Amino acid sequence: MIKMKEIFLGIDIGGTNIFIALIDNKGRIYEEARFPTDVKKIPGKIISQILRETVKIFYSTDIDRLRGIGIGCAGQINQKKGVVEFSPNLFWKNVNIVDRIRKGLGNINKKFFKIPIVLDNDANAAAWGAYIVELKRKVNNLMCITLGTGIGGGFVLDGKLYHGASGKAGEVGHINLYPDGLRCNCGNRGCIERYIGSEYIVERMKEGIKKGKGKKLLRLVNGNIELLTPKILQIGAEQHDSFSISLWNEIAKELGIILGGIINLLNPEVIIFTGGISRTGDILFEPLKKAIKENCFSYAFSDVKLLVSKLKDKLGVIGSALLPLSIIDLSGQRKEDR
Amino acid sequence: MIKMKEIFLGIDIGGTNIFIALIDNKGRIYEEARFPTDVKKIPGKIISQILRETVKIFYSTDIDRLRGIGIGCAGQINQKKGVVEFSPNLFWKNVNIVDRIRKGLGNINKKFFKIPIVLDNDANAAAWGAYIVELKRKVNNLMCITLGTGIGGGFVLDGKLYHGASGKAGEVGHINLYPDGLRCNCGNRGCIERYIGSEYIVERMKEGIKKGKGKKLLRLVNGNIELLTPKILQIGAEQHDSFSISLWNEIAKELGIILGGIINLLNPEVIIFTGGISRTGDILFEPLKKAIKENCFSYAFSDVKLLVSKLKDKLGVIGSALLPLSIIDLSGQRKEDR
Repeated sequence: MIKMKEIFLGIDIGGTNIFIALIDNKGRIYEEARFPTDVKKIPGKIISQILRETVKIFYSTDIDRLRGIGIGCAGQINQKKGVVEFSPNLFWKNVNIVDRIRKGLGNINKKFFKIPIVLDNDANAAAWGAYIVELKRKVNNLMCITLGTGIGGGFVLDGKLYHGASGKAGEVGHINLYPDGLRCNCGNRGCIERYIGSEYIVERMKEGIKKGKGKKLLRLVNGNIELLTPKILQIGAEQHDSFSISLWNEIAKELGIILGGIINLLNPEVIIFTGGISRTGDILFEPLKKAIKENCFSYAFSDVKLLVSKLKDKLGVIGSALLPLSIIDLSGQRKEDR
Repeated sequence: MIKMKEIFLGIDIGGTNIFIALIDNKGRIYEEARFPTDVKKIPGKIISQILRETVKIFYSTDIDRLRGIGIGCAGQINQKKGVVEFSPNLFWKNVNIVDRIRKGLGNINKKFFKIPIVLDNDANAAAWGAYIVELKRKVNNLMCITLGTGIGGGFVLDGKLYHGASGKAGEVGHINLYPDGLRCNCGNRGCIERYIGSEYIVERMKEGIKKGKGKKLLRLVNGNIELLTPKILQIGAEQHDSFSISLWNEIAKELGIILGGIINLLNPEVIIFTGGISRTGDILFEPLKKAIKENCFSYAFSDVKLLVSKLKDKLGVIGSALLPLSIIDLSGQRKEDR
């Protein structure tokens, strides 16, 4: 008898979209559903929608093949309890999502009650997905950096997701870049995210325009500054606009300072980038490599491989789906501890 | 038959002193020897001296009780090969110290050939010693910060010494504090060590004095600025000298920025401080706690316990002695991988 391929369900809950996908253990997507996150709704309503979409996916799929369900969610997560403690983007506080998903699906089909469900934050899910699918578990130390609205981080150290004392490790975005710098949303000052998070990149584009620079950018959006995005800044730089190039250089330098410090601290084998800004290409990565090199030891720099995830916006859902593999190994044995 | 207590030999090789000690697995020292490091000598001469002192220690001790030998050394270490790749303080390059110690002792008594010898850098040895002796393995994530001439770091994560891709993790001192800051010995700019390493603290004291501040400090050294040390700055602050207090506040703020970032990144359970500057007391630690709090998330701050090692200058040799426990467990089984 040929064994059917084992499958995993991933639920990637973001502030903008929710992405559900059924994948195999190589990260190939079989079925998917995507819908906007209606943050005005109470968590129960959003979870009901997730349940409905999940049930639809299982119309044509044998539940017996399902090995696990993984949920990735932005915010502060209690992995052990399966609770979203606080998600500023979703306006969620102490939402016991694992229990709710388990009960919701179990009430439809009892087989779901036996399926392990693992919750982690989105950056950890991405790191785990990159480790399993893109690096094929062949590195011991990997860091995944999300460059988007927020700057996030997840670690796989010695083959395990690293959570820290209370599951909150990886807050790369709130490492101090400039002592006494600008006030960040987190309440502190000078955090890297306050400078290179996508909305702050746009802010810097607008500031440049106010100062009479970036005329090229203004032309690209037909004079409507509300249409400015980091993508526009990328196009500007690709079209040799000097302001755009210098702003990317600044961003690269700032990120390089933070990453150089992390490389000195953790001597990682691989840093893999994901998120919208990570798709900017050489305009960002050429000066970034230079800046990293200038901010860490040469041996640590030569030890680290810098990659951009090829899974693009699917890394989150794929990594989420594979989260159960972080607590169960492939023989089906539950790992001692997380 | 009562089993004799098992013992470990530690060799702590610093740029100033070499400290050898025989300890039990609780970190209690039975025998010790300490002598200055004559860095003008070739490595072979220094190693011969270490061998002579070690043999002396074993005059009165049964080698059969010896479970392992650990060597802690400042610099870039290849743990797997047992080689000091580069130690700027010792002027050593590619010194295969583990082999040399093994052969040297083995030629005296063949029993030594069977003893595991583990080399690591001094900051990792200190972290390991703090983990075993002071925290009694009761934490999962510990960071040990050395505050002295250099600013060093060692991690124990999930009960294991963390080495990174090539054994070089923990370079806390060379994390960037001030973008485009002062040139550091490492070649980069703005490293934290360039501001709060003890000789730079003294530099800042001298600068203050040049500007007419710190008259109190000058009195404390009878006008001889060559006698200025961080200890003098501590006494100045204890005697309410406003310049001394404000300089400690600056140092605390700078270190707090770096540690806040590390806490956001790694969410550690414990940070334990060692090294001369760590014994400054509340004058440093009160403003340091405040600065850390201002530079990391409140939950990460409330999760972390800040301690000062009570083993003082013996932490290094005790941690070194216990290094073999990082590769063999107490049942004598060699751990699969390091």
